[in-house]
Amino acid sequence: MPSELALPPLSLNTATVREQWNLAQMIEACARHGIPGISPWRDKLAELGADRAAAMIRDHGLTVTGLCRGGMFPALDAAGRRAAIDDNLRAIDDAATIGARCLVLVCGGLPAGSRDLAGARAMVHDGIATILEHAREAGMPLAIEPLHPMYAADRCCINTLAQALDLCDAIDAEGVAPRADGQPAALGVAVDAYHVWWDPNLDAGLARAGAHRLLAYHICDWLVETRDLLLDRGMLGDGVIDLAALGQRVRGAGYSGFDEVEILSRHWWSQDPDTVLSTICERHLGCVGKPLL
Amino acid sequence: MPSELALPPLSLNTATVREQWNLAQMIEACARHGIPGISPWRDKLAELGADRAAAMIRDHGLTVTGLCRGGMFPALDAAGRRAAIDDNLRAIDDAATIGARCLVLVCGGLPAGSRDLAGARAMVHDGIATILEHAREAGMPLAIEPLHPMYAADRCCINTLAQALDLCDAIDAEGVAPRADGQPAALGVAVDAYHVWWDPNLDAGLARAGAHRLLAYHICDWLVETRDLLLDRGMLGDGVIDLAALGQRVRGAGYSGFDEVEILSRHWWSQDPDTVLSTICERHLGCVGKPLL
Repeated sequence: MPSELALPPLSLNTATVREQWNLAQMIEACARHGIPGISPWRDKLAELGADRAAAMIRDHGLTVTGLCRGGMFPALDAAGRRAAIDDNLRAIDDAATIGARCLVLVCGGLPAGSRDLAGARAMVHDGIATILEHAREAGMPLAIEPLHPMYAADRCCINTLAQALDLCDAIDAEGVAPRADGQPAALGVAVDAYHVWWDPNLDAGLARAGAHRLLAYHICDWLVETRDLLLDRGMLGDGVIDLAALGQRVRGAGYSGFDEVEILSRHWWSQDPDTVLSTICERHLGCVGKPLL
Repeated sequence: MPSELALPPLSLNTATVREQWNLAQMIEACARHGIPGISPWRDKLAELGADRAAAMIRDHGLTVTGLCRGGMFPALDAAGRRAAIDDNLRAIDDAATIGARCLVLVCGGLPAGSRDLAGARAMVHDGIATILEHAREAGMPLAIEPLHPMYAADRCCINTLAQALDLCDAIDAEGVAPRADGQPAALGVAVDAYHVWWDPNLDAGLARAGAHRLLAYHICDWLVETRDLLLDRGMLGDGVIDLAALGQRVRGAGYSGFDEVEILSRHWWSQDPDTVLSTICERHLGCVGKPLL
């Protein structure tokens, strides 16, 4: 592994400035700031329309590193689970329309009132298994995003990289081995620094995933103190994650894509969005371009 | 595994009513409420004095299910790490004075300003290895408590049961197998429902630990929504943890001790402490005595 690294390309996850800008403004801002990638959330995509968004993203020369998000499979009854499937099929089509590299799956937590975590996890398995064929036909890789264990109840019951990879191997057996054509597996993972930085088994998971299942890499920072479980994520460099070393570990395992910046933060949502983007570019160079002192 | 369970004995962790009562008041309250166990924190023990506390606990017929807490090993320099060792040696002596079943170790997070999680974990290993002989001589089992991954930075870099057991096996090789005399291992774990309920590998860890390394079992509940990372833990039954099933899993792995209730909660600290204890007793029966509907 090299001790220094060429700076990977940046991508802007639209959650980062979701309170300030619409998708059209974000696309223009990425071009203005020299950020070559973008990863829309579906609410922003729906406002602009997938076809218009696709044209505008293409015109600005941006790579779509992902569409956020499918998933949310568990539901109390069969009708609820069916509605989730239908929504995921639409998300796959939207992701294909904008040429996304993957559809990110935030898999869902416990249905309201349930304490059956194993049952929710089984519903996630079944949901992904149900949509995978449509994803294959659309040529759209699905990226399971393991979320931090503090979201197990309300957002995602897939909480470690190893658990996500167990799902991948169970549902997409042919993706266990790399494809001969070098293309990504139909089912893989999105690794987010915020969600996995603590994991003592992370390197084993990254090696197991390999280039073909490592479909996206998201970055932000873990603040000490963290004042809100969801909306207090940190700007690169403001927290305790060694993003330089983590990036090298992810790339050492074969990932060669973008560094997608996703910061859910009331603080950064209250700032001038151009300042947010320029701060991201500076900090990315400072934190990832070379090790922090 | 039986489908119903005799209700395990309760223990009161003093953090649960720490804002309302001193240790003497807690000891009397446990006797008054028919709670047969108590687990003091060291601040409360220091106020009363270990000798006086030991006598008072004995006079009230309570079992000391643990002393909270040793640990906090990582520090930026050798002097800081030495101070932590010295403090842990005193904690072992205090635990022996009050006849605690174990000294709970909350191992510590990143030293201030550090991003070196692997380094902090190595300091935890070295710290426990340094104090284990003194613990053996005092006949005081050390219980590593894996804390929820959301505390990895600021409180404890040991974040899964498997990771805690890896430490146990590395430092206390003779404790891998059960002792012929049925006594607990010199080094084991404290399993807290709040910290481990999300873990997809929990059952494997419980089975691996076995009766001799399962030194304590703490319970409270995970609230949806959780409004504070530290001080918004839930009363039994108010959250999403299936405490009935989890208790059976822990006991199925060989644990035969107390259910120690530890609730760090601004809400419950603002309530009448006798109401808190009577609520705990009711809810323990409702949640653990039989499966919740």
